[in-house]
Amino acid sequence: MTDTDAGALADRVREGDLRLYELEEHADADVAAAARRLLVEEQSGADLGTTGEYAFPAADAEPNVENMTGAVQIPVGVVGPVEIDGGAISGERYLPMATTEGALLASVNRGCAALNDAGGAGARVLKNRMTRAPAFRVADVAEAEALASWARDNVDALREAAESTTGHGELREVTPYVVGNNVYLRFAYDTKDAMGMNMATIATEAACAVVEEETPAHLVALSGNLCSDKKPAAVNAVEGRGRTVAADVTVPRDVVERTLKTTPEAVAEVNTRKNLVGSAKAGALGFNAHVANSVAAMFLATGQDAAQVVEGANAITTAERREGDLYVSVTLASLEVGTVGGGTRLPTQAEALDVLGVRGGGDPPGSNGDALAEAVAVAALAGELSLLSALASRNLSSAHADLGR
Amino acid sequence: MTDTDAGALADRVREGDLRLYELEEHADADVAAAARRLLVEEQSGADLGTTGEYAFPAADAEPNVENMTGAVQIPVGVVGPVEIDGGAISGERYLPMATTEGALLASVNRGCAALNDAGGAGARVLKNRMTRAPAFRVADVAEAEALASWARDNVDALREAAESTTGHGELREVTPYVVGNNVYLRFAYDTKDAMGMNMATIATEAACAVVEEETPAHLVALSGNLCSDKKPAAVNAVEGRGRTVAADVTVPRDVVERTLKTTPEAVAEVNTRKNLVGSAKAGALGFNAHVANSVAAMFLATGQDAAQVVEGANAITTAERREGDLYVSVTLASLEVGTVGGGTRLPTQAEALDVLGVRGGGDPPGSNGDALAEAVAVAALAGELSLLSALASRNLSSAHADLGR
Amino acid sequence: MTDTDAGALADRVREGDLRLYELEEHADADVAAAARRLLVEEQSGADLGTTGEYAFPAADAEPNVENMTGAVQIPVGVVGPVEIDGGAISGERYLPMATTEGALLASVNRGCAALNDAGGAGARVLKNRMTRAPAFRVADVAEAEALASWARDNVDALREAAESTTGHGELREVTPYVVGNNVYLRFAYDTKDAMGMNMATIATEAACAVVEEETPAHLVALSGNLCSDKKPAAVNAVEGRGRTVAADVTVPRDVVERTLKTTPEAVAEVNTRKNLVGSAKAGALGFNAHVANSVAAMFLATGQDAAQVVEGANAITTAERREGDLYVSVTLASLEVGTVGGGTRLPTQAEALDVLGVRGGGDPPGSNGDALAEAVAVAALAGELSLLSALASRNLSSAHADLGR
Amino acid sequence: MTDTDAGALADRVREGDLRLYELEEHADADVAAAARRLLVEEQSGADLGTTGEYAFPAADAEPNVENMTGAVQIPVGVVGPVEIDGGAISGERYLPMATTEGALLASVNRGCAALNDAGGAGARVLKNRMTRAPAFRVADVAEAEALASWARDNVDALREAAESTTGHGELREVTPYVVGNNVYLRFAYDTKDAMGMNMATIATEAACAVVEEETPAHLVALSGNLCSDKKPAAVNAVEGRGRTVAADVTVPRDVVERTLKTTPEAVAEVNTRKNLVGSAKAGALGFNAHVANSVAAMFLATGQDAAQVVEGANAITTAERREGDLYVSVTLASLEVGTVGGGTRLPTQAEALDVLGVRGGGDPPGSNGDALAEAVAVAALAGELSLLSALASRNLSSAHADLGR
Repeated sequence: MTDTDAGALADRVREGDLRLYELEEHADADVAAAARRLLVEEQSGADLGTTGEYAFPAADAEPNVENMTGAVQIPVGVVGPVEIDGGAISGERYLPMATTEGALLASVNRGCAALNDAGGAGARVLKNRMTRAPAFRVADVAEAEALASWARDNVDALREAAESTTGHGELREVTPYVVGNNVYLRFAYDTKDAMGMNMATIATEAACAVVEEETPAHLVALSGNLCSDKKPAAVNAVEGRGRTVAADVTVPRDVVERTLKTTPEAVAEVNTRKNLVGSAKAGALGFNAHVANSVAAMFLATGQDAAQVVEGANAITTAERREGDLYVSVTLASLEVGTVGGGTRLPTQAEALDVLGVRGGGDPPGSNGDALAEAVAVAALAGELSLLSALASRNLSSAHADLGR
Repeated sequence: MTDTDAGALADRVREGDLRLYELEEHADADVAAAARRLLVEEQSGADLGTTGEYAFPAADAEPNVENMTGAVQIPVGVVGPVEIDGGAISGERYLPMATTEGALLASVNRGCAALNDAGGAGARVLKNRMTRAPAFRVADVAEAEALASWARDNVDALREAAESTTGHGELREVTPYVVGNNVYLRFAYDTKDAMGMNMATIATEAACAVVEEETPAHLVALSGNLCSDKKPAAVNAVEGRGRTVAADVTVPRDVVERTLKTTPEAVAEVNTRKNLVGSAKAGALGFNAHVANSVAAMFLATGQDAAQVVEGANAITTAERREGDLYVSVTLASLEVGTVGGGTRLPTQAEALDVLGVRGGGDPPGSNGDALAEAVAVAALAGELSLLSALASRNLSSAHADLGR
Repeated sequence: MTDTDAGALADRVREGDLRLYELEEHADADVAAAARRLLVEEQSGADLGTTGEYAFPAADAEPNVENMTGAVQIPVGVVGPVEIDGGAISGERYLPMATTEGALLASVNRGCAALNDAGGAGARVLKNRMTRAPAFRVADVAEAEALASWARDNVDALREAAESTTGHGELREVTPYVVGNNVYLRFAYDTKDAMGMNMATIATEAACAVVEEETPAHLVALSGNLCSDKKPAAVNAVEGRGRTVAADVTVPRDVVERTLKTTPEAVAEVNTRKNLVGSAKAGALGFNAHVANSVAAMFLATGQDAAQVVEGANAITTAERREGDLYVSVTLASLEVGTVGGGTRLPTQAEALDVLGVRGGGDPPGSNGDALAEAVAVAALAGELSLLSALASRNLSSAHADLGR
Repeated sequence: MTDTDAGALADRVREGDLRLYELEEHADADVAAAARRLLVEEQSGADLGTTGEYAFPAADAEPNVENMTGAVQIPVGVVGPVEIDGGAISGERYLPMATTEGALLASVNRGCAALNDAGGAGARVLKNRMTRAPAFRVADVAEAEALASWARDNVDALREAAESTTGHGELREVTPYVVGNNVYLRFAYDTKDAMGMNMATIATEAACAVVEEETPAHLVALSGNLCSDKKPAAVNAVEGRGRTVAADVTVPRDVVERTLKTTPEAVAEVNTRKNLVGSAKAGALGFNAHVANSVAAMFLATGQDAAQVVEGANAITTAERREGDLYVSVTLASLEVGTVGGGTRLPTQAEALDVLGVRGGGDPPGSNGDALAEAVAVAALAGELSLLSALASRNLSSAHADLGR
């Protein structure tokens, strides 16, 4: 690439010869990005120098972004290593987390220390279903009832159509929901190591063709929001989406007192009054302290979809005194993760997956996705344990004051 | 920095002389990060080469991260320029968005084209309140009633204490919520151009000292989840948090047909059956198609807190036929943004704020925060318009198939 | 019965010889009630004359109430007859409704007139499941995962135990939900013509014994609130409880204009802005105008459980223009009704069931329960149609002013 | 009245001379009801003999029902007397409850015994606001922002208009909520001893006239569902509607063991796992065991609106060990009660209010409404205490088996 090339390309946009999104058709991806920076700088007066200092060939990001100008750089670090005793991941692991919120990694790291002092964290994937729920319009409630019955009776035909579009995904359930003359069919897939939204969408579209062929139903929208993707929704919090995954630990009293500077009773009280009763009063779907922080930081580090932090926050934290010690758990109802596809192919993100040992497709398929989900759950557990303890000893804002932000 | 320095530092960790988070006390921040990479590579077998190729002094990220190993690089691009007629931002703007989800920028960009064809998007900040709600324990409901009354009567004293800790923030309301012997006081601040969580936390802690001094209440947790930060919660969706902001447009029928390849009636139908009825059946707090996508991408680009995408998804999209044309609006109840502090100081993020012309403190204070909120709302509007139209013309998954992911 | 008998019995309570709830062991039920009235009158100064004028033998109410003093009398009337084209009920029916809210029957009756002018209302039961979800405590998330798996694999054994307790109920599904070391098993039954809470509770208790015998789980509560009975809860609104039932109608434009004094467009607009968008902003589980009114009035008239009006309000109303006419539907997610047991045996309530032709067990079993559910849905539809129309023509409060209350 | 009169009136309906709802214009109300029974009996084959045996002049029910055929009779009894230490009601009170659910009064009565053994229950009204929220349509979000500002600035003018319609009600707040081009103004009133829906509706209609006069807004619906009446909605659970009221008790350990046959620890565990964690997982707005049962039974007994049991179920129960004893509270966010108007004037209902000593307008105004709310809260507390204890000792379904239903 040369600056001249980019300048020439920018000229063609200025002259109306090309549109901003067409540059990659006429130049190398890096030149296109450079030209775009020139144009944006000119229009806005901004200097995009650092944005242009990305460390990968722009062409590699073509499946991930359009109209690329460069990359945003978000600080990443590690916490741990933390001892995990999971269903799909076991042993010591560093957990990579990317964030701009000062004090977060310090807090989670302190939680990891407590987990280790307690002998490590347990973790289990409890369910694994990626969903897509198209909306159909029918004539009336009689026809809606008939379609719901038809769908229950024809899951095999729907599966055949859906699975014909994918080498990996398996259709597991189709659940009909009716509202008047609207019928939503919630297709639930095991998408193995892929997060699976795209796979589920394509497979469901094929199944929808069968529905429209065999019944009077008319497809209104391939996604009818009963899925529900990237929206806070009870259907996810109750029934799960992606992985439902939990992590837990029993922290001996002396570890609570020494490492966390508080008591099992104080932590349990904070959890009840804040995470359970406070969230209840708030009309919440998330009964936790800051699970979204850990989810977001691990999502950014490992190339997950940042918009799915929304569902990742559907988590319930429990804390109870257990024979003098402290039992804490966190259960994430709808954690959508993948180790193939999406942002996982980008270099810094792939490196983070390597740190966890879960890059690419797992053996058996789905095991890497499960392992990543369990690692995120453990990070969330560490974060909850640490923040609840900090609140219990009243040092939340002083911690922030020390560590900046 | 030299590799030798990093190696020596890593040795001291291996030997148990230093802990992983203490490296910055003993070396330059970049050396510390390099040493950490060595240790993580050794433990995990990963190669963190690209993670180390960040384009800013590691010391600059110290307020944002601990245990830094480098940076994650996320592709960023622009959509637009789009014409905005907002309360705090007006004129043509490129909107920077960082994502790994292929097809997103293309989709939003198509929405921007439609907005421009329609003469631009309107936008308004409707409310601006950052909240923090500590939880207090009292003896019983009689004492709870007394504390709630006391809080209503002593807002001035609480304000004085709270505002003594901040040069910018203003305490606007204190609302008590009672559950048995738990009292939650929701402090609501105008934090101007800062997102304000930290400011609100510190100010509220000072006010809590007054509560504990003047009443029998005992502070259980500085955050009692009635705030509610980074959790899906109705209190935010109903009452707002951060900025409540809306954007809208009336798209002439011919633009709908030509640019969006559908009709006002079809878009309105999709919105009703999917975003309203489908979300209703899903038990949702988010009645939209994919607002979180635009929020997340602009949050990543501009240095916002990715975990707050959770509240950013509390949005309602409406679409209706208006005299043959198409009126579409999106209202985000709880969009938490800032143009100072947090990740906004990092170089690529600051550049994105410059693209929007909203970097740093505004004049008057708060105007940059308002402008950023309105820009995000317009991006969300463009995304909704585009996806609803795509669904209406049934091309969602084929768009994905073309554009990758 | 003589007053002397009641007086003597009351004396024994005054003297501490008997407790208030023991009177039926020592006297005829009517005498016991009379004695109780004497004691309550004495303590409170109230005159319970009318309370004592009930029109059935007190002994007949023994399965329904303890500590009986008499009966409360609630005005009852009828609307209709309305033409129903349901899956379980067809033809013209008067709908009995008991209420103290003036204008309600007049409003529903106006809706029925419109339904008849439109050729009658459609109605269908979409699902039928009474649920009970015990809460178990296990050691940790690993054990929780194991129990969930065990439950999925042992539905037959659980069914055998559950169904051994009932001659009518059939266990259809067992769905596990896990939160940390808590496992909730949602047992879902077809309870035929019984509302079925009691049947489900007893059957589930038997199944719980199997769980405790075969697994390390400990039963904490026979109801763990995932059921969820008599609480507003998304699990019911999404998945249903009791009957999920819908009713609908297409009202020709001229009927809308003549009978309802408004237009299809105005009704659709009110429904969208109020029932969909307004409810969305309110964080609702009920997207309707006043379905609870019709549900409550028919529940009281027919001997249903008034506390289950809570779940009966989980309803979504839709209204749309359809080729110039008006299509309106109402879908009740969780309507819990029965035609045997509970209050259905009381004389005035049994008479109301006779008015509908649904008293006692149906042939086939469950058909009377279905018919009652559809009748309630039609009443709700009539109420929605009428109120939406009244709002559309702005006469809500003037209607109230005319008709009292 | 003679049967002949009724027969003649029925003939006129058969002949098409009169409509069913016009009978009261042509005959005494009791004759009209008798005629209606004849017609309904004829059409349905039912015998409405007991329905006709009501114990009050039909004319007295004219403000409460239309198309009256008689009355439904629901068994009523009392629990207690229970010792109450409330803000508006104190001393020993029998609590009247009407229900058809066997075992309910026995259960609540057992709870009352425990309350008395503990020295009585505390109770406080925490807030008192009846709300009505009309929906307005405006041009766009800019106009919506302007209307919200206007409403905040013109509360005095709105109050003047609203209060001109009522001798008792006081407008306390007007809160604007915006969704796109929809603006909802939530008017909040102190309606004293009236439940107040009708008062609030009429007053709000007058205020709406001012809004339409002074601004470009167009009233779409006098109720826009942000109120929110008779629908499960977070806005009520969070912000309250009618009375927000709480009751609590500390039960000494020996009373828990002797009267309730369990331990403070077991009750606290059941409450946490069922009412808090179970409800959280259920996506609930009600975190309690069966508050709706007590609310419904007292509502029926005292002439409240049975459809408002919906909001009455928005309650949170807490239970915790306190120095070896058991502290239990129940907080009802939105309990809508009145002691004047509605069904309170009917004879059996008025008698129940007399039992509580709260019939009619209070001195000062509102105090009877407060007292009734506190009495209901105490009944709910007794019910929670009893059922939680029963679950804790695993005897729920055996209790049902003994007591029928």
